[in-house]
Amino acid sequence: MEYLTGVSRKETLELSELLKEDMIGKTVKVNGAIHTIRDMGTVAFVILRKREGLIQAVFEAGSCGFELKEVKEADTVEITGIVEKNEKAPNGIEIRISGIRILSEPTEAMPLAISKWKLNTSLEAKLNYRPISLRNVRERAKFRIQEGVVRGFRDFLYREGFTEIHTPKIGAKSAEGGANLFRLEYFHRPAILQQSPQLYKQMMVGVFDRVFETAPVFRAEKHNTKRHLNEYTSLDFEMGYIDGFEDIMAMETGFLQYTMELLKKEYSRELKMLGITLPEVEKIPAVRFDEIKEMVAEKYDHKMKNPFDLEPEEEVLISRYAKEAWDADFVFVTHYPSKKRPFYAMDDPEDTRYTLSFDLLFNGIEITTGGQRIHDYTMLAEKIAARGMTQDGLEQYLGAFKHGMPPHGGLGIGLERLTMKLLGEDNVREATLFPRDLSRLEP
Amino acid sequence: MEYLTGVSRKETLELSELLKEDMIGKTVKVNGAIHTIRDMGTVAFVILRKREGLIQAVFEAGSCGFELKEVKEADTVEITGIVEKNEKAPNGIEIRISGIRILSEPTEAMPLAISKWKLNTSLEAKLNYRPISLRNVRERAKFRIQEGVVRGFRDFLYREGFTEIHTPKIGAKSAEGGANLFRLEYFHRPAILQQSPQLYKQMMVGVFDRVFETAPVFRAEKHNTKRHLNEYTSLDFEMGYIDGFEDIMAMETGFLQYTMELLKKEYSRELKMLGITLPEVEKIPAVRFDEIKEMVAEKYDHKMKNPFDLEPEEEVLISRYAKEAWDADFVFVTHYPSKKRPFYAMDDPEDTRYTLSFDLLFNGIEITTGGQRIHDYTMLAEKIAARGMTQDGLEQYLGAFKHGMPPHGGLGIGLERLTMKLLGEDNVREATLFPRDLSRLEP
Repeated sequence: MEYLTGVSRKETLELSELLKEDMIGKTVKVNGAIHTIRDMGTVAFVILRKREGLIQAVFEAGSCGFELKEVKEADTVEITGIVEKNEKAPNGIEIRISGIRILSEPTEAMPLAISKWKLNTSLEAKLNYRPISLRNVRERAKFRIQEGVVRGFRDFLYREGFTEIHTPKIGAKSAEGGANLFRLEYFHRPAILQQSPQLYKQMMVGVFDRVFETAPVFRAEKHNTKRHLNEYTSLDFEMGYIDGFEDIMAMETGFLQYTMELLKKEYSRELKMLGITLPEVEKIPAVRFDEIKEMVAEKYDHKMKNPFDLEPEEEVLISRYAKEAWDADFVFVTHYPSKKRPFYAMDDPEDTRYTLSFDLLFNGIEITTGGQRIHDYTMLAEKIAARGMTQDGLEQYLGAFKHGMPPHGGLGIGLERLTMKLLGEDNVREATLFPRDLSRLEP
Repeated sequence: MEYLTGVSRKETLELSELLKEDMIGKTVKVNGAIHTIRDMGTVAFVILRKREGLIQAVFEAGSCGFELKEVKEADTVEITGIVEKNEKAPNGIEIRISGIRILSEPTEAMPLAISKWKLNTSLEAKLNYRPISLRNVRERAKFRIQEGVVRGFRDFLYREGFTEIHTPKIGAKSAEGGANLFRLEYFHRPAILQQSPQLYKQMMVGVFDRVFETAPVFRAEKHNTKRHLNEYTSLDFEMGYIDGFEDIMAMETGFLQYTMELLKKEYSRELKMLGITLPEVEKIPAVRFDEIKEMVAEKYDHKMKNPFDLEPEEEVLISRYAKEAWDADFVFVTHYPSKKRPFYAMDDPEDTRYTLSFDLLFNGIEITTGGQRIHDYTMLAEKIAARGMTQDGLEQYLGAFKHGMPPHGGLGIGLERLTMKLLGEDNVREATLFPRDLSRLEP
């Protein structure tokens, strides 16, 4: 028997440790993957890839007990050497190699030139070789930014008194119903994969007042577009005791403010590497659905097809309008038509053709749908009946309302879409580690 | 158009705000659900349930513009009144009601007496009425503890340089293969729900060096036991450049140490409410599989059936041994037999009947499986062949190894099992918001 007592420091150092001022001149050990080798004749630069970035190590023939041909790209190694200043090296330091130990070796040459600054290949090839293409430091940086977004979401909501929940993804019945469900057999019973945690998070508002979840959702939509995925990560929250759906928009604005600060503070390396300028989120304009449709139709001479629907082209025009008129990257569009919203959305008592709900657009694309929900059982039962739906499978959900629910509302944010737009990409797959779409089930 | 500028303070106060010293004597507004009403004749206690706890409000007939019969249990209300000290009230304060506004009303009486200290009902009834039974403050406190565990996991791993990833749950092929998979049709192609993110997190070690994920996993196991779920939340990490599988155990010990401190600091209210004494995690004993089996067989006169397998009964005896011999609630059991581990587990070069792997037992139940993985492509291909498996569907996974992978290992922790044991419960459903088992697909 022996005891484990926790994490002890390793002899090998990470990049941030090497960058400390007093490291210059010291002999250190560093491990990493050989990202590339630049052989200049008598001297060679061996670039190590580590989680925090690249480190240049300098090999001089005869100065250590091995020959350059003994190492190759994609070996993982442990290097011993002296830390020296070099303005031209990545991060301003390099390591003069005195010893090297090989930890592992590849068996095949790289299919992609991952050490190039920009991976010069198609999205299709990047996705086919995902575990390799992400070794490009700019490709992987995208998913560090994504980490910052989801981390910001959680940390902000913890601070605001939300409780994190984990709701089941296999269920008997879904929130939105119908056509876009993946179906499976669950021990000889029909089951579905949840399109959203909607019904569960509402039920939990009756318990915790404020809840959130960051988890996968599944949509069997037969669209192969740049903005659709069949599985994605949804950032969901739901909050009770609201005075109106404006409280939900205010909370989302707060999340965005918190997260941009977090990104600036903790992910500046990745922002710089990708050349990202974060959007301004100090104030976000909100404008009614029917009004902004009129405004863009007039300003851009756009022929409005349907006053109760929003086309993708109109989302682009609304964002253009917000940028031109208010210098805003984000814009809330409020009071969506009731027909376009699910049964649980609260209709506007002033005009029941519209709902107390909103979408948030970010540079031309919807990244959030949210709003106030019906909290009164009788009103909810009437709306279900008016839509020709049945209460089958909704007994537990409706039970929560029969036994009292506070006024509440919430939203769902598509993590990959938000990340895509922060990155300035135009295909959501660029911001998805392993996308699932009509044609892609692997890797 | 108007602007959203972030979260502004509400006029209504939360419990932690009311508990500030300078609030006594002030007139405040507080909202919440009426948890229970205790009518004493001329005076009545209206207990409000809020996310941070219970608040006692005092109603005196004639002192405000309404009558007691106008409110009932499960109404949600906004109360106006003066904060007063009362040692006997929950949290030592009460609010003398001067006004009340009803926000929402139930339509049916409660099916369970949720205001009792202990919900006096069966697990079956609690699960059937989950959105209601969780309104009991002790029931909901269990899931606050669970939040603390998953939050501790993430915060600790962020600090240790891990990157959070989101891997797909729908796939063509699974890590462990075979019998326990839920199957579905994915646009006319056969697909499965992932049993674990194993293959994905390993591939991502080649990119980020250290990764983690907290997400649902799906297991179509036909066991209906107190310890099995068909869907659960798995806390997974995988780390590269390890010196041995002891590094994984050390990291898990560090996580447990960090998390117990977080629980003490941020969740003391819930720990107290549930009467939980947190386990000691300063040092965790580790003992070999074959040795501890001999030790418990001898000490407890237990007849060992199979030297290469561990029965649930033996897990209980090992934990008993660890408690008696080392005063330990946790114990690592190392070097599991190779036959009982998946193909990617690294065999012990000293004795290939065993692996460089471990389970962590917590008071009689396995809560973690982990270990070192094979990182060499040739070794991996040989083990796959030796097991009579094919490489079909593993091309991308194996590709990562062909192109170089560092020595690495990792683990998966069952969130619900760990929570269950922290709570001192003996059925994992007590620590699962909406359990999925052989018979339960709703709510």
